[in-house]
Amino acid sequence: MVNSTGSTLSHLECTACRRTFDADVLHRLCEECGKVLYPRYDLANVRLRPSDLLTREPSMWRYREVLPIRDAEHIVSLGEGFTPLLAAPRLSERLGIADVRIKDEGQNPTGSFKARGMSAAVSRARELGAKSVAAPSAGNAGGALAAYAARAGLAAGVVMPEDCPRINQVEAVVSGADTWLVEGLIDDAGRLVRTTSEARGWFDVSTLKEPYRVEGKKTLGYELAEQLGWELPDVVIYPTGGGTGLVGMWKAFAEMTELGWIGEQRPRMVVVQAEGCAPIVRAHDQGERHAPRWEDATTDASGLRVPVAVGDYLILDAVRDSGGTAVSVSEDEMREATRELAASEGVYPAPEGVATFAALRRLRDTGAVTDTDRVVLFNTGAGQKYPDFVPATPEVVPADSPAWKTGL
Amino acid sequence: MVNSTGSTLSHLECTACRRTFDADVLHRLCEECGKVLYPRYDLANVRLRPSDLLTREPSMWRYREVLPIRDAEHIVSLGEGFTPLLAAPRLSERLGIADVRIKDEGQNPTGSFKARGMSAAVSRARELGAKSVAAPSAGNAGGALAAYAARAGLAAGVVMPEDCPRINQVEAVVSGADTWLVEGLIDDAGRLVRTTSEARGWFDVSTLKEPYRVEGKKTLGYELAEQLGWELPDVVIYPTGGGTGLVGMWKAFAEMTELGWIGEQRPRMVVVQAEGCAPIVRAHDQGERHAPRWEDATTDASGLRVPVAVGDYLILDAVRDSGGTAVSVSEDEMREATRELAASEGVYPAPEGVATFAALRRLRDTGAVTDTDRVVLFNTGAGQKYPDFVPATPEVVPADSPAWKTGL
Ligand SMILES: Cc1ncc(COP(=O)(O)O)c(C=O)c1O
Ligand SMILES: Cc1ncc(COP(=O)(O)O)c(C=O)c1O
Ligand SMILES: [Zn+2]
Ligand SMILES: [Zn+2]
Repeated sequence: MVNSTGSTLSHLECTACRRTFDADVLHRLCEECGKVLYPRYDLANVRLRPSDLLTREPSMWRYREVLPIRDAEHIVSLGEGFTPLLAAPRLSERLGIADVRIKDEGQNPTGSFKARGMSAAVSRARELGAKSVAAPSAGNAGGALAAYAARAGLAAGVVMPEDCPRINQVEAVVSGADTWLVEGLIDDAGRLVRTTSEARGWFDVSTLKEPYRVEGKKTLGYELAEQLGWELPDVVIYPTGGGTGLVGMWKAFAEMTELGWIGEQRPRMVVVQAEGCAPIVRAHDQGERHAPRWEDATTDASGLRVPVAVGDYLILDAVRDSGGTAVSVSEDEMREATRELAASEGVYPAPEGVATFAALRRLRDTGAVTDTDRVVLFNTGAGQKYPDFVPATPEVVPADSPAWKTGL
Repeated sequence: MVNSTGSTLSHLECTACRRTFDADVLHRLCEECGKVLYPRYDLANVRLRPSDLLTREPSMWRYREVLPIRDAEHIVSLGEGFTPLLAAPRLSERLGIADVRIKDEGQNPTGSFKARGMSAAVSRARELGAKSVAAPSAGNAGGALAAYAARAGLAAGVVMPEDCPRINQVEAVVSGADTWLVEGLIDDAGRLVRTTSEARGWFDVSTLKEPYRVEGKKTLGYELAEQLGWELPDVVIYPTGGGTGLVGMWKAFAEMTELGWIGEQRPRMVVVQAEGCAPIVRAHDQGERHAPRWEDATTDASGLRVPVAVGDYLILDAVRDSGGTAVSVSEDEMREATRELAASEGVYPAPEGVATFAALRRLRDTGAVTDTDRVVLFNTGAGQKYPDFVPATPEVVPADSPAWKTGL
């Protein structure tokens, strides 16, 4: 007997040509036009009410009626989601902004928000019969995929740039994934996954190239609303590689409005990228709806080293429709901002995460964010995964130091 | 006006001579006999009922009536605690044990359970007027102290062994703590903190040398009971350095029995240490109540490299009174167990955390744990903080590899 989640998943819909597909068969991109497929729900039949959430488990699966897994036994979970939304009073004051908060995604399993997407995608892949999953990754997604595949009892393949953070390589290997490094970037890794998938029987869960990772990420949007008492902030700042979290939140906002949980108000959605890899910022500046590949991408914020995004039009539409913007920040700004955020609020951010704070400084300076705004920054990962990003070498007290007698 | 937490804190009591002290003044060890002080509560006046917890926030502060902070404004929080208690079905089956679960403390702020103790100690130090806090640390406690001090707006001093994990050094520095490394071990670092405290105005929050870190750690015990429906497991396996978590849980069990939340049943409390530093195991084997310093302590599980514990008698009493035991495990067993745990359950453990799983194998072999036991392992930290513990070097695919055409 099926232990039903109450999921109201009804079908898949192409975000470009609007063709629909059966949701109970494994799909990747639209077979008609090659664009991104979104799961759709029978929202009129969702029985969950916001007040029911008060007694639910503190993970993203509290929203299971609007998530794609039908049988609760198929949920592959390590406790992901429902991370704290932390006040940042010192930053608010220093910048002269009414309310700045940090969604601390570093507290997820595997230390990044990639856990959400992989929990959803691996759960659904298993539910639909996949035996083996794979993905290219800038780093954290590979670690998360390996962990969730291990938890699901599925085989996993991970392909990453050879200069991705050491810990991402280690976590993938230790979690039992077949792991390769490539001379190249994440899109090169993606080509290799495509070439290999058939022979190895991999189901390819590349960002937005299958319909379910975005469903895990969209829970960021549900949580934001719930944690703010069913209101949304004025500004959301999001470090954008493939952009799944941003478009996921945008989708969640639409669903919640349809559910009657929130009104029509939307935050201005702000894309942050690194100066060394800013295809979405460039396309936004040029008024384009698609973002050509960024050549010679380079940044130490490894998750932002994504030269091309299959969901570029979804990201750019959300930014424009919301009255948001797109900005890039320098490596130095990110390093400086890391120290400032950690030392003033106690949150040690990933380089990608801190890019949002560096961007906020800029937006405040240009007036794009003003003193009355309520702002949410997404710290998408734990700084602890990037020991080399900010140099830090404490003084050593040798065994014969006078400090042993006189104090430090 | 005080935004009261409802804390029922009444006084401090010496765990050895039973003298009592005023809880609203900063104390460290017993001024009479030099032993550990425990906070005591007016448990008869706790109005909280287990069912009230259903709608509380998912952090350790859900238990605020039995925590020492009086004014909610003084709580220094990054969202610590209420971590998932994950089923480990594959390990259970492989070992032939009824129920094995993992309390995943790696999902705390700063990636270890040290967050709990520091959240409580820093909150209370601030409430009682401290301006500056310091501690010696094997690594994770230093990172946590720095983060919570930053969040509290207090100055912090951290002193660690020079060969402690790199990330612990970085997180302390980045979070703005004055940080030193010593040629020596954690007890040497402790001496240096003592020598320095007066001149720098530090309040010294060394493990169990002030009364409140243990209060944060005891929430592990409350959570265990709550997450298991107000029953306790048969066996708790805990990686023991200073032992705060173990004695904290033991204290929590007594409090919950007095509150009427649980009965008299207690888990067998099992201490795990590393073969290269096992002072508590040695003392337990010899039937002693105190554990002399372990000379030439060495282990890559840095949090277990604690040669002497001020709470040795509290640890050893809990182990004996519970019918538990104390075992040590080798470095090779820990490394092997890391891969097995990560690849079979998706939890990538810290070396200290995985020592519990390595110990479980031994206990199963000797019959100390049997097939009907319900066992909880404490994974006290995220494996992601220890990239060098288990070697992992993925294969590199060069730009001219035939794999680009033929697949991996
Ligand atoms: C920490 C972190 N932040 C942000 C991103 C970008 O996420 P997305 O690809 O969903 O835009 C990544 C991607 O790897 C990441 O690891
Ligand atoms: C990950 C980890 N586990 C366990 C321990 C030991 O904890 P305790 O000193 O409370 O026994 C430590 C201490 O540093 C640690 O960092
Ligand atoms: Zn289409
Ligand atoms: Zn005493």
